[in-house]
Amino acid sequence: MTQGRVGILGASGYTGAELLRLLAGHAEFDVVRVSADSNAGAMVGDLYPSLASVYGGMRYEPTDPAAFAGLDLVFCGLPHGESQNLAPDLVDRVAHVVDLGADFRLSATDHERWYGHAHTCPELLDRFTYGLVEFHREELRTAEHVAVPGCYPTTVSIALAPLFADGLVDPTTVIADCASGVSGAGRGLKTTSLFTETDGNFSAYGLLTHRHTAEMELVLSEVGRTTATVLFTPHLAPMSRGILATCYARPVVAGLTTDALLARYREYYAGEPFVLVTDEPSGTKATLGSNAVHVTVRHDPRTDTIVAIACLDNLVKGASGQAIQCANVVAGLPETTGLPLVGLAP
Amino acid sequence: MTQGRVGILGASGYTGAELLRLLAGHAEFDVVRVSADSNAGAMVGDLYPSLASVYGGMRYEPTDPAAFAGLDLVFCGLPHGESQNLAPDLVDRVAHVVDLGADFRLSATDHERWYGHAHTCPELLDRFTYGLVEFHREELRTAEHVAVPGCYPTTVSIALAPLFADGLVDPTTVIADCASGVSGAGRGLKTTSLFTETDGNFSAYGLLTHRHTAEMELVLSEVGRTTATVLFTPHLAPMSRGILATCYARPVVAGLTTDALLARYREYYAGEPFVLVTDEPSGTKATLGSNAVHVTVRHDPRTDTIVAIACLDNLVKGASGQAIQCANVVAGLPETTGLPLVGLAP
Amino acid sequence: MTQGRVGILGASGYTGAELLRLLAGHAEFDVVRVSADSNAGAMVGDLYPSLASVYGGMRYEPTDPAAFAGLDLVFCGLPHGESQNLAPDLVDRVAHVVDLGADFRLSATDHERWYGHAHTCPELLDRFTYGLVEFHREELRTAEHVAVPGCYPTTVSIALAPLFADGLVDPTTVIADCASGVSGAGRGLKTTSLFTETDGNFSAYGLLTHRHTAEMELVLSEVGRTTATVLFTPHLAPMSRGILATCYARPVVAGLTTDALLARYREYYAGEPFVLVTDEPSGTKATLGSNAVHVTVRHDPRTDTIVAIACLDNLVKGASGQAIQCANVVAGLPETTGLPLVGLAP
Amino acid sequence: MTQGRVGILGASGYTGAELLRLLAGHAEFDVVRVSADSNAGAMVGDLYPSLASVYGGMRYEPTDPAAFAGLDLVFCGLPHGESQNLAPDLVDRVAHVVDLGADFRLSATDHERWYGHAHTCPELLDRFTYGLVEFHREELRTAEHVAVPGCYPTTVSIALAPLFADGLVDPTTVIADCASGVSGAGRGLKTTSLFTETDGNFSAYGLLTHRHTAEMELVLSEVGRTTATVLFTPHLAPMSRGILATCYARPVVAGLTTDALLARYREYYAGEPFVLVTDEPSGTKATLGSNAVHVTVRHDPRTDTIVAIACLDNLVKGASGQAIQCANVVAGLPETTGLPLVGLAP
Repeated sequence: MTQGRVGILGASGYTGAELLRLLAGHAEFDVVRVSADSNAGAMVGDLYPSLASVYGGMRYEPTDPAAFAGLDLVFCGLPHGESQNLAPDLVDRVAHVVDLGADFRLSATDHERWYGHAHTCPELLDRFTYGLVEFHREELRTAEHVAVPGCYPTTVSIALAPLFADGLVDPTTVIADCASGVSGAGRGLKTTSLFTETDGNFSAYGLLTHRHTAEMELVLSEVGRTTATVLFTPHLAPMSRGILATCYARPVVAGLTTDALLARYREYYAGEPFVLVTDEPSGTKATLGSNAVHVTVRHDPRTDTIVAIACLDNLVKGASGQAIQCANVVAGLPETTGLPLVGLAP
Repeated sequence: MTQGRVGILGASGYTGAELLRLLAGHAEFDVVRVSADSNAGAMVGDLYPSLASVYGGMRYEPTDPAAFAGLDLVFCGLPHGESQNLAPDLVDRVAHVVDLGADFRLSATDHERWYGHAHTCPELLDRFTYGLVEFHREELRTAEHVAVPGCYPTTVSIALAPLFADGLVDPTTVIADCASGVSGAGRGLKTTSLFTETDGNFSAYGLLTHRHTAEMELVLSEVGRTTATVLFTPHLAPMSRGILATCYARPVVAGLTTDALLARYREYYAGEPFVLVTDEPSGTKATLGSNAVHVTVRHDPRTDTIVAIACLDNLVKGASGQAIQCANVVAGLPETTGLPLVGLAP
Repeated sequence: MTQGRVGILGASGYTGAELLRLLAGHAEFDVVRVSADSNAGAMVGDLYPSLASVYGGMRYEPTDPAAFAGLDLVFCGLPHGESQNLAPDLVDRVAHVVDLGADFRLSATDHERWYGHAHTCPELLDRFTYGLVEFHREELRTAEHVAVPGCYPTTVSIALAPLFADGLVDPTTVIADCASGVSGAGRGLKTTSLFTETDGNFSAYGLLTHRHTAEMELVLSEVGRTTATVLFTPHLAPMSRGILATCYARPVVAGLTTDALLARYREYYAGEPFVLVTDEPSGTKATLGSNAVHVTVRHDPRTDTIVAIACLDNLVKGASGQAIQCANVVAGLPETTGLPLVGLAP
Repeated sequence: MTQGRVGILGASGYTGAELLRLLAGHAEFDVVRVSADSNAGAMVGDLYPSLASVYGGMRYEPTDPAAFAGLDLVFCGLPHGESQNLAPDLVDRVAHVVDLGADFRLSATDHERWYGHAHTCPELLDRFTYGLVEFHREELRTAEHVAVPGCYPTTVSIALAPLFADGLVDPTTVIADCASGVSGAGRGLKTTSLFTETDGNFSAYGLLTHRHTAEMELVLSEVGRTTATVLFTPHLAPMSRGILATCYARPVVAGLTTDALLARYREYYAGEPFVLVTDEPSGTKATLGSNAVHVTVRHDPRTDTIVAIACLDNLVKGASGQAIQCANVVAGLPETTGLPLVGLAP
C-alpha cells in the first residue's frame, strides 16, 4: 500500500493527537478523517494548537464507523471498552483496523479475568494480531487487524525477552518495577492527573492488580515457551512522557556476567531499528518523541539476580509510534517510515 | 545545493545537539563531521544517548577550522566570542558559515557597547547576513555567511513586527516581558541551572541590561524605519524549552481594535510557513520541538495599550531550527526542508 | 483572644488545606471543625495525606453555617460566589469571618462590573475590611470581618506601593506582568490544570480582563490618593506555587536612580515582618511555604521606566497565610504567630 | 539541655540550609555560627534568599573546628570524607557532634569495602551512635556523638523493619527499588544535576553498587537478628525532594495477608510520632518539608511476595530533620521539637 487513506477514531485523546503528530511526517499515510466523542465538531487545531499548522482545517466528526468505511487503515484511539462496541461495525468495512486500546489484546478468558467483564465480541478476537513488532513481525505481515500492545508490557517485554528466549531465568521470579509519565493516564479529568497533585510527587499505584500484568505474562510466556508470572508495580513520575522499567529475575544458570548478558542482548536485538542496547542505563528523556527503546542489563553477583532496564516514550513506542510501526508492517512499507529515531533532548 | 556536506563546530552543546536532531531528518544536508572542545574524543551517542540511534558511530573531533575546509556548510554552535576567534580561519575555506552565536549579529560599535569588548575581526562583519528569515529572506538568498538571531529577539520581533511595519505604535514605548526555559542557559555548569534551583521557581534576571535588547531594537527599527527602544525583562521558567514574549506598546493612532489587529497580523504573516497567528494565546508547549512561532495580539481600550504575544521553542526557531531555515534559503532549498511544523504535545 | 476556637468553611480546596497546614503550627488558634461540599463525609487525612499526622481524626462535615455558630473565628475557603450565599447566615453567629474569596473585596458596583453579576448581600459589604495587612493594619485591629485580598493584587500592590505613596509614577501607566503557579487555579478539574497540559508550558491567560485588576487599582489608588489604572497580564507557569509580578510604570519626577529607589523601599517597608527588600530579584521558590514577600526595584535610564518586582507563595501570603496574618491582627495576637518566615528551598 | 548553642559545619550545602530552615522554628536550639568552604565569607541570605528573613545578618565563616569549641551541639553537613578529617579536632571540643555524612556510619571494615578507602580515624567510630531514631532511640539517649543515617537506608529500613523484626521474610531476597529527587545529589555542579538533564527524565543510576546498600543491610540485619542482603536500585526522579522506596521480599511463612500485615505495621509503629502507616500508598509530596514517613504494605498471593512502600522528604527525615530528631533525643528534649508533622501539599 502506498498513499493509504487513513482515519482515526478517537483522535482527540493523547494517543490520537500523537498519531496526528507522527503521521504529519509520514510519506505514505494520508489522514483523511478523524473522530471524537465529546469533542466532535471542534477543530483539531483548537484542541491541539501544536497541530494547527498542519491540521488547521480538519474538524473532529462524531465517532461513526460507517463514515470511515472504505478507508485503507483506521487507527482506534478510543477509551477502553469502546473498540469492542465499534468493532463489529468496523472490521469488515476497512482494510485494516489498528486498535491502540486493550480490547483485542487478550483472550476472552483473560480479558474477563483482568478487566472484570465479559468481552462483547469474542468472535472477532482471532482477526486481531497482537503487535509487539519485535516479537510478532512475521504474523503482522499477513495480519488483517492489529491490537497494539500496552505501554508497560512493551517496555517490560523488551527488557526481559532475551532472558526468556534463552531460558536464563526462573519465570516465576519476575518483578517489574516501572515508572510512567502522566500522559499514560490520558486527557481525562482526574484529580490525580492535576499538575498540583503530580508535580514534585512520585507515587506507586495499581498495586498487585494492574491490568497490563496479563500482557507481560503472555508475551514473556510466548517468547520463553514457558509460564511466566510477573509482579508488576507501576509508579507515577512527575513528567509528561516516558516509561522506565526496572525488572528483576533470578537466574537458573550459573556463571552469568554482565558483559556476557550485554553481548547477548546486542546479538538478540541486532537489526532491530528501534531497540538500542546501551552499556549505561538511559533515562526516559533520551527517547522523548522517538520510537526508540533503550535497554541495558546487569547480573548482580552479590544477590545472584539479573536487573534489566528499558525505557521508551509511552506515547510513541508505547502507543502511537508502535501503532504506526505495526501499520507499516501490515501495509508492506519500510518499518521505520515516518517514525523518529532520535529523541528530543534536552 | 543538494546533498550538501555539512559540519558543526561546537556540536556538544545544546544548540549543536539540536542541529544533529533536526538534521537527522533533513533530506539534503549530510552531517559529515562535528567538533567539540572539552568533549573532543567523546562519541556523540555517549554524550547524547538520544542521538545514538542515528549518530552512533560519530565522534567529536577537536575544534579545528582547517579540518572543516571544503565543506558546503558549517554551523557554529560555539560559546560567545569563539566564533570571532575562528572566523578568520573559516570564512574562506567553506562555502557558507551559519553562526548561531552572537558574534556577527551586531555592528562593531553595538557589539562593543553591549558585549563590553571590541570585536576581534570587524572586517568580517559585512560578510555575515543577519537571518531572521521572515524579515531577511531576500538578503539570505544571496548571502555568503549567516548570523542567526538570538532566541529572544526572534520572539519579540515576530510579536511586534506588524505594528512597526505599519507605524502603529510609539517606538519608544516597547516593553518586552519574556520567559524562557532553562536550555537557553546552555549545558554549562552553573548553580542557577541546577534542577533544584530552578524547579518550582520563576525568577527575573538580566534586568535592564540583557544583550539581546540590541538585536530587538535593530530589527524593530529596521522593520519600522524608525528608532525603536525596548525595555526587555527576561525571566527563567521551570521548563527545559520554550520562550514566550508578552510585549506592550502604546499606539499612535486612534480606533485600533483587537479584531482589526488580528486581521492585520494574519495578512502580514500570510504565506509564512512557520508563523501561525492565533485568536487565543498559545503556550510554549504548542511549539515544542517544532520550528513554529505562534503569535496573537490585543488592543486594551482601558489603557490604550497593545499587547502582542509570541512563543516558540528556543532551541528550534530560537536557534538550531532557524539556523537550518537560514541554511535552506542560502542553499536554495525549500525553506521548510527538515523542519517540523507540529509541536510535541502533550 | 487566645486559644480561639476556629472553623473552616470550604476546607477541602487548596486554600483550606493550606490553612490547616499553617494552623497545625499556630499556638493560639485551634481548628475544631471543617466543612466541605462534595467531599463532606471524607476524612481530612484521606483527601490530604500530608495532613493525616495532625488531622487524622477530623472529618469534613457539610457546609452549614449554623453548625459553626459560636466559634471565635471562621475562615471561608469557598469557591467564588458561595461566601455571598452563606454570609447572611454566618456574620452574626461568629465573632469574626475571614473570607478568602473575592465576595467581599469590592464595592457592589465594582463587583458587578468585574464579576458580571449583582452582589447578593451588598448590605454586608461594610462589615468586611479589606485586609492587605501592610496597608490596612490599623483598620484590621478593630475589624469585625475580613476580606482577604487576592494573590495577584497582594503581589502587585506590595511591588508598587512605595512608588504610589510617594507619587513617583504616572498612575495611568502601570503594567503588571505576572506569572503564577497552577495551584492558583484550585483543585477543580479543568483540562488546563492537568499536568500534561501545564508541564513544560508557559502561557498567558485572562488577557485584559482578569478580575484581580480591580483590586490592584483600588489598593494603588488608595495608597497613592489618586486614580490608578493597571494593565494586568497573568501567565501560568509550570510550578505548583508561587507568584512573581514584574511591574512597569513611568516616573513623573526626574533624577530617579535604582539606588535611591531601593533605599526608599527599605525605608517604606522597615518594620514589616513579611516584606524583604532585596538588591537582586528573588525567585518565587525563595518564598515557598512561607508568608514572606520579596521585592526589588530598578530605574531604567534608557527608557525612563521603573521596574518593580515582587514574589510570594500564592497559597500563603497570597491566600491562607495572609488570612491568618489578618486573623492575628483582628484577634490582637502578634502578627507573625504561626506564620513561617523562611522558605522551603531547594 | 535547653537553649543549646548550636553550630553547623558545612552549612552552605542543601542539608546545611535545611538545618537552618528547620532550626528557625526550633525553640531550644539557637544557631550561633555556621561555616562553609568555598562560600566562606558569603552572607547566608545571599546564598539562600529563602533564609534571609531570619538569618539576614549571619555570615559563613571558614570551616575551622577550633572556632566551634565549646558549643553544645555541632551539626556537620560536610561532603563525604571531610567529617573524618575534622572529627579529631572536634569530638573533644563540643558536647555533641551530629554528623549528617557517611563518615561514621559503618565499621572501619565496611567503610573501606563500600567507600573504597581506609577510614582515617577508626578509633573514633565507637564514639558515634548510628541514629535511625525509630530503632536506636535508647542508645541515642546516652550517646555522645551521632552518625545520622543516609536517606535511602532510612526509607528502606522503615519500610521493611516490621517484616524483619517478626522474621517473616527470607533475608536474602530483599530488593529495594527506590526513586529520589535531585536534591539528594547536593548543590555541587554536575551535568546530571542540571534542570535540562533531569526535567522530564526518569533514570536508574548506581546499579548494584550504591554505598547506601551497606547501611540497609546493617539495619535490617540488626532489626531481624539475621544477615540481610539487599539488591538496591536507586533512580533519579524529576523533582527536587522526596524518596519513595518500593521494597520486595519473599515470605518464609504461609498465610500472610495484606490486612494482617497492615495491622502488624500499625502495631509495630504505634507511638512513633513520625511514622504513619496508611492503607493506600502515599506519594512523596505528602511528606514534603515534614519529618514524616508514610508506609504501607501488601502481600501478593499470585507471586507470594511482600511489597512494602515508604516515602519521606530526603532533606528532612532523610537528613536534616532526622539529625534534629537525633539531637532532640541526645539533648533530652521532646523528640518532635521543631520538626513539622504536616507536608507542604499541593
